[in-house]
Amino acid sequence: MADKPSHVTGSLITIGDEILLGDIINGNARHIAAELRGCGFLLDRIITVGDIEDDIVEYLGKCLEGSNFVIVTGGLGPTDDDRTCAAVSKAMQRPLICNRDYAQWLREHLGQAGLGWTKEVERMAELPEGAVKLGMDSAGFSLIHKDIPCYFLPGVPEEVKLLLGKMVIPDLEARFPNRCAYLKHIIRIQGMPEAQINQKLRSLEPDQDVEIGYYPQQGENWVSIFATGKDGQECRDIMMRAKDKVVALIGERHISGHNDDCLEKVIGRLLRERCWRLVLAESCTGGLLSRKITAVSGASDYLDRGFVTYSNRAKQELLGVPEKLLSGCGAVSSEVARAMAQGAARNAGAEVAIAITGVAGPTGGSKEKPVGTVFIACVTPEGQRVKKYSFGAQPREQIQESSAQAALAMLWELLAGGKKPPVCDRL
Amino acid sequence: MADKPSHVTGSLITIGDEILLGDIINGNARHIAAELRGCGFLLDRIITVGDIEDDIVEYLGKCLEGSNFVIVTGGLGPTDDDRTCAAVSKAMQRPLICNRDYAQWLREHLGQAGLGWTKEVERMAELPEGAVKLGMDSAGFSLIHKDIPCYFLPGVPEEVKLLLGKMVIPDLEARFPNRCAYLKHIIRIQGMPEAQINQKLRSLEPDQDVEIGYYPQQGENWVSIFATGKDGQECRDIMMRAKDKVVALIGERHISGHNDDCLEKVIGRLLRERCWRLVLAESCTGGLLSRKITAVSGASDYLDRGFVTYSNRAKQELLGVPEKLLSGCGAVSSEVARAMAQGAARNAGAEVAIAITGVAGPTGGSKEKPVGTVFIACVTPEGQRVKKYSFGAQPREQIQESSAQAALAMLWELLAGGKKPPVCDRL
Repeated sequence: MADKPSHVTGSLITIGDEILLGDIINGNARHIAAELRGCGFLLDRIITVGDIEDDIVEYLGKCLEGSNFVIVTGGLGPTDDDRTCAAVSKAMQRPLICNRDYAQWLREHLGQAGLGWTKEVERMAELPEGAVKLGMDSAGFSLIHKDIPCYFLPGVPEEVKLLLGKMVIPDLEARFPNRCAYLKHIIRIQGMPEAQINQKLRSLEPDQDVEIGYYPQQGENWVSIFATGKDGQECRDIMMRAKDKVVALIGERHISGHNDDCLEKVIGRLLRERCWRLVLAESCTGGLLSRKITAVSGASDYLDRGFVTYSNRAKQELLGVPEKLLSGCGAVSSEVARAMAQGAARNAGAEVAIAITGVAGPTGGSKEKPVGTVFIACVTPEGQRVKKYSFGAQPREQIQESSAQAALAMLWELLAGGKKPPVCDRL
Repeated sequence: MADKPSHVTGSLITIGDEILLGDIINGNARHIAAELRGCGFLLDRIITVGDIEDDIVEYLGKCLEGSNFVIVTGGLGPTDDDRTCAAVSKAMQRPLICNRDYAQWLREHLGQAGLGWTKEVERMAELPEGAVKLGMDSAGFSLIHKDIPCYFLPGVPEEVKLLLGKMVIPDLEARFPNRCAYLKHIIRIQGMPEAQINQKLRSLEPDQDVEIGYYPQQGENWVSIFATGKDGQECRDIMMRAKDKVVALIGERHISGHNDDCLEKVIGRLLRERCWRLVLAESCTGGLLSRKITAVSGASDYLDRGFVTYSNRAKQELLGVPEKLLSGCGAVSSEVARAMAQGAARNAGAEVAIAITGVAGPTGGSKEKPVGTVFIACVTPEGQRVKKYSFGAQPREQIQESSAQAALAMLWELLAGGKKPPVCDRL
């Protein structure tokens, strides 16, 4: 009989002063963690240290104690700041030895780039004893130390992605065939505060194979379900049961999508089903809503144009908003939002239109319409809606983001809550 | 005589399974690192562990060994997963004691929210002996352990930002008055590959107070200068000297801006100086360029409209692109890009126009025009330019991002390389 599958957990060490100084965000760590998890490997710690040999030696030693595997990124370049190889040599007591094939490759590569062979480059080819290159055209290598597979990758995100997917994960999969499987599922909830979600899910019985989490996420609330099983099939069964329970407790009508199904994608499907075309008229969001809609591949099926009407003149000329309305109610008003949506629909011959007008700040606010005041209008063949939002004195980009997200949520509610569409055969 | 200022370095422990599972990026770490650095404090390690008591105890103990201060985020909530207080109690051998004021506050707060007093909430009010609350309306607290100030913050980013700025940094500043000052400066370089920048800067003499770094950043190359001084004035002097040397070696004409001066901002200033208006015509970027331009406060001074002309019909109707051109050369062509820019300028009565048309993929590519083929056209009163780019078979969003960035770089080159403008008094 096969052994019971076990959790395979490893350590990640990311080396780089840029992270410690707050210059860059640790995107490598997130990518590595997510990719590993998808393939049945977990991280139990992520450690960031600078390019300081003693620190790397210390934490490498620590990670070798309690991990099934170790991944290290960064510090493999040619400069004096790059201390990873020296630290590995010290931590594992493996002398540095010139890797002839790699030296040869470096020499040719440098020649092509018109650069010379320097002491620094020579140093790049010196790897700890036992090291095996991870492909020739990168600085990465692996070695097995006291039965623990260790992978050393460069810090450049593109190289991390490539080597992780092509070399590290396949190697880990071969070394740990008998491991637990994991599945994660996100349920995206609209228009229900977190406290209410919590209350609704309180009746879920505890299950040691299932973990439930909550994240507020740009105006949406996400419930995440994490399932652990002895294999993929068991995992899927556990997930199915947990998901059905959560969906029943929350109620279908509050759920806009699952996993990667962001509002932009769901709205695209709803429009496609109805054979409806969408047009956008943006003022304070300046193209952000359009950018979100067109980030979805195939958006040209339902979007043929968008307007960024930043000035009053543009609102008049392109959307036919009456001058009277602009001077009487002001550009930031429910009347102008509605006129923008109607004008855009007319101009494009589209069934559905969204318009956004507001004060994104930091200047332009008034007592009646402070920074963060935004009007959003939606027009569909089944009705229209205009709503005022007060996003408060947040940074400009945050107000723009919240506005675009609120517009998507409004359109989703109108579309999802509307009549079931007849079959559309235009596309 | 005052002691020589010294580096004050600390450790950051971020607790949370979401980071280890790759669900979220460690934005708190980046924010904390950057804020601390700006105030003269450095981090020498960032450690992420899950909500596991033993792990927290272990790394807290380690961090207490070599740090001037310790900051911990996460694990302070009411659920069983929140293990920070128990771990602190164990690591520092300080019993958990009910904080009466906090318990009282929690009770009132829960009452207002219509929630009850539960065992879990009671547990929230139990803090390690010696703990001092960081404000009453958050779960954060601080304590001094063996002369090392330790700060425990909740994991919610908004609360981290608030408590760090209002409580943690002022407290650190009071405790470490005699510390080094740091300054960082970013020089943004256009149109020069990293290898060439490296070569140009090779003649810089080493200076122990100055660190130079390189980052490729969305089509730009950044050179960062990090200066350390005994106080702010010395630091500024060191920076000034280093900056002047770097600028002289790179050459002014390759430098588009410094620090936060992204291309969008610089372009805005150049347009404002010239009294020129800008209009945008986007196809494959679907509003992204417009979004970038309008993310800058005051963009309405020079942008009054933008067009997202996704369909051929929209290109004809809104920009007057001749049908003949669209059917003859294809929507993705230098001819159509130029016609889009000219049409947009005409429609808006603007002096300057940018147009982008391309194949963002993943579908829509052909042998002649594979995914990643993009044409960008720029029109100014001083000339026009059309250029073909091949961004390769990257993900859709990356091609869109590269296209928008290339368009900004093209416009910057045209504006910055043009005639010195007369004084503009329109604004």
